[in-house]
Amino acid sequence: MDAERLREVMGRAMEIGREKIPLGSVASYIPELSKARKDALGLCIALPDGSVYKTGDTNIRFTIQSISKVISLCKALELHGPQEVFRHVGMEPSGEAFNSIVELDLQANRPFNPMINSGAIAVESTIIDYVSFEDMLEYARLLCNDSGITMNRQVYHSEMNSCDRNRAIAYLLKSKEIITTNVDNSIELYTKLCSLNVTAESLANFALLLAKGGVSPFTGERLLAEETVRTVLSIMLTCGMYDGSGRFAVEVGVPTKSGVGGGLMAAVHGRAGVGIYGPSLDKRGNCIAGCEMMKQLSRDLGLHMF
Amino acid sequence: MDAERLREVMGRAMEIGREKIPLGSVASYIPELSKARKDALGLCIALPDGSVYKTGDTNIRFTIQSISKVISLCKALELHGPQEVFRHVGMEPSGEAFNSIVELDLQANRPFNPMINSGAIAVESTIIDYVSFEDMLEYARLLCNDSGITMNRQVYHSEMNSCDRNRAIAYLLKSKEIITTNVDNSIELYTKLCSLNVTAESLANFALLLAKGGVSPFTGERLLAEETVRTVLSIMLTCGMYDGSGRFAVEVGVPTKSGVGGGLMAAVHGRAGVGIYGPSLDKRGNCIAGCEMMKQLSRDLGLHMF
Amino acid sequence: MDAERLREVMGRAMEIGREKIPLGSVASYIPELSKARKDALGLCIALPDGSVYKTGDTNIRFTIQSISKVISLCKALELHGPQEVFRHVGMEPSGEAFNSIVELDLQANRPFNPMINSGAIAVESTIIDYVSFEDMLEYARLLCNDSGITMNRQVYHSEMNSCDRNRAIAYLLKSKEIITTNVDNSIELYTKLCSLNVTAESLANFALLLAKGGVSPFTGERLLAEETVRTVLSIMLTCGMYDGSGRFAVEVGVPTKSGVGGGLMAAVHGRAGVGIYGPSLDKRGNCIAGCEMMKQLSRDLGLHMF
Amino acid sequence: MDAERLREVMGRAMEIGREKIPLGSVASYIPELSKARKDALGLCIALPDGSVYKTGDTNIRFTIQSISKVISLCKALELHGPQEVFRHVGMEPSGEAFNSIVELDLQANRPFNPMINSGAIAVESTIIDYVSFEDMLEYARLLCNDSGITMNRQVYHSEMNSCDRNRAIAYLLKSKEIITTNVDNSIELYTKLCSLNVTAESLANFALLLAKGGVSPFTGERLLAEETVRTVLSIMLTCGMYDGSGRFAVEVGVPTKSGVGGGLMAAVHGRAGVGIYGPSLDKRGNCIAGCEMMKQLSRDLGLHMF
Repeated sequence: MDAERLREVMGRAMEIGREKIPLGSVASYIPELSKARKDALGLCIALPDGSVYKTGDTNIRFTIQSISKVISLCKALELHGPQEVFRHVGMEPSGEAFNSIVELDLQANRPFNPMINSGAIAVESTIIDYVSFEDMLEYARLLCNDSGITMNRQVYHSEMNSCDRNRAIAYLLKSKEIITTNVDNSIELYTKLCSLNVTAESLANFALLLAKGGVSPFTGERLLAEETVRTVLSIMLTCGMYDGSGRFAVEVGVPTKSGVGGGLMAAVHGRAGVGIYGPSLDKRGNCIAGCEMMKQLSRDLGLHMF
Repeated sequence: MDAERLREVMGRAMEIGREKIPLGSVASYIPELSKARKDALGLCIALPDGSVYKTGDTNIRFTIQSISKVISLCKALELHGPQEVFRHVGMEPSGEAFNSIVELDLQANRPFNPMINSGAIAVESTIIDYVSFEDMLEYARLLCNDSGITMNRQVYHSEMNSCDRNRAIAYLLKSKEIITTNVDNSIELYTKLCSLNVTAESLANFALLLAKGGVSPFTGERLLAEETVRTVLSIMLTCGMYDGSGRFAVEVGVPTKSGVGGGLMAAVHGRAGVGIYGPSLDKRGNCIAGCEMMKQLSRDLGLHMF
Repeated sequence: MDAERLREVMGRAMEIGREKIPLGSVASYIPELSKARKDALGLCIALPDGSVYKTGDTNIRFTIQSISKVISLCKALELHGPQEVFRHVGMEPSGEAFNSIVELDLQANRPFNPMINSGAIAVESTIIDYVSFEDMLEYARLLCNDSGITMNRQVYHSEMNSCDRNRAIAYLLKSKEIITTNVDNSIELYTKLCSLNVTAESLANFALLLAKGGVSPFTGERLLAEETVRTVLSIMLTCGMYDGSGRFAVEVGVPTKSGVGGGLMAAVHGRAGVGIYGPSLDKRGNCIAGCEMMKQLSRDLGLHMF
Repeated sequence: MDAERLREVMGRAMEIGREKIPLGSVASYIPELSKARKDALGLCIALPDGSVYKTGDTNIRFTIQSISKVISLCKALELHGPQEVFRHVGMEPSGEAFNSIVELDLQANRPFNPMINSGAIAVESTIIDYVSFEDMLEYARLLCNDSGITMNRQVYHSEMNSCDRNRAIAYLLKSKEIITTNVDNSIELYTKLCSLNVTAESLANFALLLAKGGVSPFTGERLLAEETVRTVLSIMLTCGMYDGSGRFAVEVGVPTKSGVGGGLMAAVHGRAGVGIYGPSLDKRGNCIAGCEMMKQLSRDLGLHMF
């Protein structure tokens, strides 16, 4: 991609994104999240040649939230391989909201996929005896090439006070023997990982790592096995945007994951990593500006997988 | 009812019950329950005139389990009146098994009825700030006219080790703000009440109290308000036998509640209290002998409400 | 019951009913039904001694709608006995609205009960090869002691134009081999029976027949077997008021069935038949005045089963 | 791809496929389908340069079944554009079997996606007033570059005798006003299109057309708009293999659609069209050999999208 053209396209995307901001709203289920500046918006695109293009609020720190599900899945796959991991969680999109319990209970054997809460908690349970939170923090820093990542204590404590539904999910998983770990520990690790402070640039870096098949764009070192990356990207594509994943695959066609902290990361296979920050969310909990920006970028830059 | 005729009918019922025992099995989800003697069977009928008819194992102690839901509902109704209680729980049969989560989650506002676990936990939460376990133990002794009721510690500890599903239900209720109490305390009280040791005779006494509209058959004292009794009996009739309640209402026509400890109590309006003990259960968790015995008693003694 | 007292109680019930009328609305899913006079209200109580007490619009003709489900169930039980009928339909309250498809599809083997549409269509299918519509018309006249019952052609044709959901239910039943009859014929018979024109008095007569255990209050002839009546009343009690059946059993305690034409009939075991007409419906499709009137009558006359 | 290497890889895929055949079974829900030779197996790969590689039973005719859903979707998108089509049907994977009714009824507004029966019937309804069956037959011949396609009358009549569930779905759609067309006509067209006789080669041709973005590999003519193709491929990827779509996307990573007639077609973006015939099906209704063969081909030829 030519730099000038890229900057122009990014500028247009920012405009389009900004127009959407007023239509969404900042997450308010915990007080800490609701403090975000609603009109913040940042876009970062990292290319395989090491160049990084940024515009807007790309260095504001915000909590990674659900995007941490991707990090946990990477770790679980690297530790145990897909066969073991997918004994505890499926790979099927569910057509349900991120925190559905109904389908979990009807479908007796395991959560639908690792991108919904029940699935993420099941993934967590496969790694909790092998890694500490500190290990995972280091791992996040490595994958995002961002040594500045820390845990946001305010958000963490705030979340711990309103995670009854996640506890319900974890106990249900335990009663079905899908997980056998201590529920309190699992919820603690899960919530800590959701509370990591990242930037749009961190996410672009992580996305680029995935786009490059697991080889660090900075050191040339292989950080993730090819099979891990292929699995993660496929699941992001089919399940990454909750009950809007199918439409996103049609309209954008790029594996993408969002978080209610306002983050969104998209890995354009072989070509680029995209990170967006915008805390104004649509009703599904996705960054409302980011979704529209991805549609525009996909069209303008021909990023669609098909 | 004439004593001789009654003894004859009870004898036939016992025979019919005994034939069914081999077709069921003792609850085995916790080790303590599985120790019950499968072929135990006892039948006790208490009449308004104070006479009590017993046959078989009517003095074996066993845990009350779900029948304690009736005691908690009585206490909640007496404390707060129906309007307040039914803000937290419905009165509708659910057509679902006792530990269903699906319907609870789809129907956002409250559990279907007080006879399923989610409903009982919601009822519990309305009394937990007003009574201690010791108060409830005394209350159970009073309603059952049985000062020998104690908590079975083995069963209690055994249940506490396998109540993940109930914890899941409680956290789900809390996440929906149907309950606001501490989940650990609620589960503890709920499980303690399930672990009360009763006899077939205790249950017959409690059933007779309900059959007499709340006036003690022993002291003539009013122990429960008329409205409480009417409400409790109606709910036992429509919801007391889980997803077999409708069929039971058609075939037996007497408000009845069962527990997986093997107990079953039936209140024949104005006429009698029936208590049965038989730990061999059918697939729904109801005393297999007891269900058949109630059918027979209803037919032979004309106990059907219609 | 003393006549003067009864008239006084009925008068009060009418007042209470009238107050509720503005809060409901007339069924509008077909044009014909929406023509009903919203403020019409009639109450008829028939007693075992042959006396009939009427007040208000007791002789207005209106379509029987869902109350015909009780007539079909009577006929099916009389023709085949309960064992055969309940191979095709269950006896469990469903906690769902009258036209639910979800539960039918999840629970593979048969509809929950004969009072929801799927169950009524299943019942229909057991009689359709044995009786003609004309036979059923005669049967309705007999049970209601009302030779003036005819089919309302306008309503029938109007309903046939908007019965796609019922057709969907019938085809689903057929695909599961719960019914094997011709779907068009079944829907036609079902809809014709819903279109019978009755009065509040017809319903009171039918209710009295059930209250008297199946013996005609007029001729002393047994029209329905005792077991049929017991079964029908039990099912009316647990399932007669759709997803409000449980609450109605608690608050009124009398087996009752309603129809969206505005009819409501209640059989007070051994004591009375009640028929009400009031086309203003609550959100569940029950006569809004009638429900409140039944609550009042139950309280004032002590009609509750418990 | 080099020809020799391709033939070798195809040979290995055939071996792997043949090993799976005994583990599946031929569709038997209609007599006509059950007549298929269980051990038949054919693989055809068509390349953009016009070369076609075949092995095994690539010229046996069999009914296209669900793969016709792709043809109908193409036609609907070309006729009306995506905005209009997706007013009647969603784009979300459902995590449910192909003939689910539950989700359709819970989610009030429209079927989940065009690859499940309810969605296909909704798509059908958008074209039925614009095209005749003969038009669609011609269209299928054009897209598959196979003038030999005809309707299999035996299968058609056989299917029409067992389509009660599809009728149920269509009436449910009509009752929700998602479709407004005549149900009999819709079911007839739908069933006729499912009964088209194709070959593995027809499917490879159609897949190649999609892989080439809608430009005929034979004439160079644009047969489908780019946006149509992008939409269709994305939906095949996320929803094409029913409740196994997610796993298939991870393990194979190629947009694929199967039919219970034993057909399977896969469009490798920009590179190849694959057609497979093998009537031995897995429990989800997918060609059991074909799924395994696609996994192998994806690995050996590097076909995975990521």
